[in-house]
Amino acid sequence: MTLPVRPHVPNLSGERFRVVYRLAGSEADAAQTARTIANEQTVEFPDAVVPDGDIRDQVMGRVEALDADASDGWLATISYAVETAGSDLPQLLNVVMGLTSLLTTVRAERIDLPDSLLDRFNGPRFGIEGLREVVGVWDRPLLSTALKPMGLSSEHLADLAYRCALGGLDILKDDHGITDLPFSPFEERVPRIAEAVARANAETGYNCIYAANITASADRIVERAYQAQDAGAGALMLSPALTGFDALRMLADDPDIDLPLLSHPTFGGSNVAGDSASFSHRLYYGQFLRLAGADVSVYANTGGRFPVSVADSHGAAAGCREPMGSLKPIFPMIGGGMTLDRGHALRAEYGIEAIFLVGGGLHTAGPDLTATVRRFVELVS
Amino acid sequence: MTLPVRPHVPNLSGERFRVVYRLAGSEADAAQTARTIANEQTVEFPDAVVPDGDIRDQVMGRVEALDADASDGWLATISYAVETAGSDLPQLLNVVMGLTSLLTTVRAERIDLPDSLLDRFNGPRFGIEGLREVVGVWDRPLLSTALKPMGLSSEHLADLAYRCALGGLDILKDDHGITDLPFSPFEERVPRIAEAVARANAETGYNCIYAANITASADRIVERAYQAQDAGAGALMLSPALTGFDALRMLADDPDIDLPLLSHPTFGGSNVAGDSASFSHRLYYGQFLRLAGADVSVYANTGGRFPVSVADSHGAAAGCREPMGSLKPIFPMIGGGMTLDRGHALRAEYGIEAIFLVGGGLHTAGPDLTATVRRFVELVS
Repeated sequence: MTLPVRPHVPNLSGERFRVVYRLAGSEADAAQTARTIANEQTVEFPDAVVPDGDIRDQVMGRVEALDADASDGWLATISYAVETAGSDLPQLLNVVMGLTSLLTTVRAERIDLPDSLLDRFNGPRFGIEGLREVVGVWDRPLLSTALKPMGLSSEHLADLAYRCALGGLDILKDDHGITDLPFSPFEERVPRIAEAVARANAETGYNCIYAANITASADRIVERAYQAQDAGAGALMLSPALTGFDALRMLADDPDIDLPLLSHPTFGGSNVAGDSASFSHRLYYGQFLRLAGADVSVYANTGGRFPVSVADSHGAAAGCREPMGSLKPIFPMIGGGMTLDRGHALRAEYGIEAIFLVGGGLHTAGPDLTATVRRFVELVS
Repeated sequence: MTLPVRPHVPNLSGERFRVVYRLAGSEADAAQTARTIANEQTVEFPDAVVPDGDIRDQVMGRVEALDADASDGWLATISYAVETAGSDLPQLLNVVMGLTSLLTTVRAERIDLPDSLLDRFNGPRFGIEGLREVVGVWDRPLLSTALKPMGLSSEHLADLAYRCALGGLDILKDDHGITDLPFSPFEERVPRIAEAVARANAETGYNCIYAANITASADRIVERAYQAQDAGAGALMLSPALTGFDALRMLADDPDIDLPLLSHPTFGGSNVAGDSASFSHRLYYGQFLRLAGADVSVYANTGGRFPVSVADSHGAAAGCREPMGSLKPIFPMIGGGMTLDRGHALRAEYGIEAIFLVGGGLHTAGPDLTATVRRFVELVS
């Protein structure tokens, strides 16, 4: 034997968390795949030589159920010892979906964590209610746009921000591609836009906030957050597929930061899109982001520029808003090619606990940006 | 007009970098998709209102060519102004593949960066030659295993490490799931394994190295790197799909760290696997990692536990080893279910500038781990 026989594993509480995976193929295939996942995500070891006793019985994942799904395929529920999730968010994510992400027939649908594991995460600081307090809007969906196109100067972007804020928009965010570009350097752009939004707020009495895109090198993210906060930004935006989900968690837990956090989905589309996706929208845009402490989850909605199904769009919103232990519900920010004329329908579809993001569509709706924004507010009120 | 007319964009050098995308569909579809990408990855703006002049002509991506691919589909070459890549690696990645990652018919195949852009990145510190100097092996592929299964104590893992090192293995790495677990806490495990490997080296005269898995919370990665280095680890392993690619870059550029870096592919499989993948193996496991400064790219090879094609496996190795300006070539570490009996064939297939990773397979090959490793070394020598 190359390994100890029946090694005793101390520190096992017996508590387990559950992950539901959607599996393609026949029932026999699905049953085999479920067993493969239970092994792959934990011991990652040839079954014949997995040590008996604690490792096989408790440390290795356990297939708890395999059910036919109403629509298609199979739903396997696999439980894992809470101890496998280690001491941080990356390791929890790693147990939910490690090298299994290479199996194109597997998609993680949702997670169910016991309080002992949930309690390790502070989650969103603001959530839906906290963000409503910041912007002072309680009775309608919130509205947002992205400041763009790339290539505009900081001055031009600030002017766009001013005109949008004047019309009553709630959240102005940098486009995800506008980080620290020579056309609009971070240290120049952020104070200018923040000042423009404050100036508009002084005129209107509204509390529009500017979400500065702080996506940056790993060792500069915190510095950018402080700079943006000091410059008067009202929120921070980060792209976790570029920075890792835990960079959001780091910001959400930082006692010196007191701003809502927006998550942007750039770079990570194949995690959720298409037949070989590893995650449901509900999990990736909802549950993961709440563990990471985002207050707003930006994603591409159905019927826009991207091939997203109605079910996936609604799944993302559900993941943001459904009960999840002590973690606050967060705002789905519904974008990806939305237009003004869908405002009313989007409200009917998502209710008021949502943020509608119209980017380029604000510029095709008429020559007067402030008037367009006013119309947008009326449409959803 | 909501935007300035023909805004002048200063700071445009005229230099551009290129990305080749593979597109599915008819030629007309592909031509339309290529134009969509050029817009989406930069200005992200309705074409009718993209400002004429510098923004449309230079800041927006430009479709340079659309060619039928030998095997299937189309290859679109799109160029971007080097200034769009901003000041850091995340923004460069963001221009290569932003929300386009949601388009399931698009896969980024490779990038071609001019020296002015490549020179911003130091790349791998060791590369193939530097790592060979560390382990003192020049005339054969290097050999590696992963220390597992999860659940073993630090003492047991250290014992495995000792026995493998005694047999002549070159690199012992923590399994990607072994981070900071109660069964084998980081601060206990790393010194023990490092000590065991040093003890074996003292007996054999070899220079086996231990790659400690430092994947952790965003704000603890650097601390873990220092701890591992101080404890005698000979390399560091990080999982960039969990931490962001730039966390590798941060470590590679840290003047207080002087260890080779291994990249592990956990959590990120859907980026490269299946029909809706966003990236080729060559780009994701090769070019991106060299920009990020990894010295070793671990990936799942064809014929193992995962459905990976021969072309993709070879593509990853090509991305690691082909010329890329001043950036050193790096080792592909070929794993994902390799077994001892493939050692000879793998050498014939990949040559000697590769690392073969046999994990669980070492434990099914016989009862004496040290003897098994010796056989593995002989097989590939």
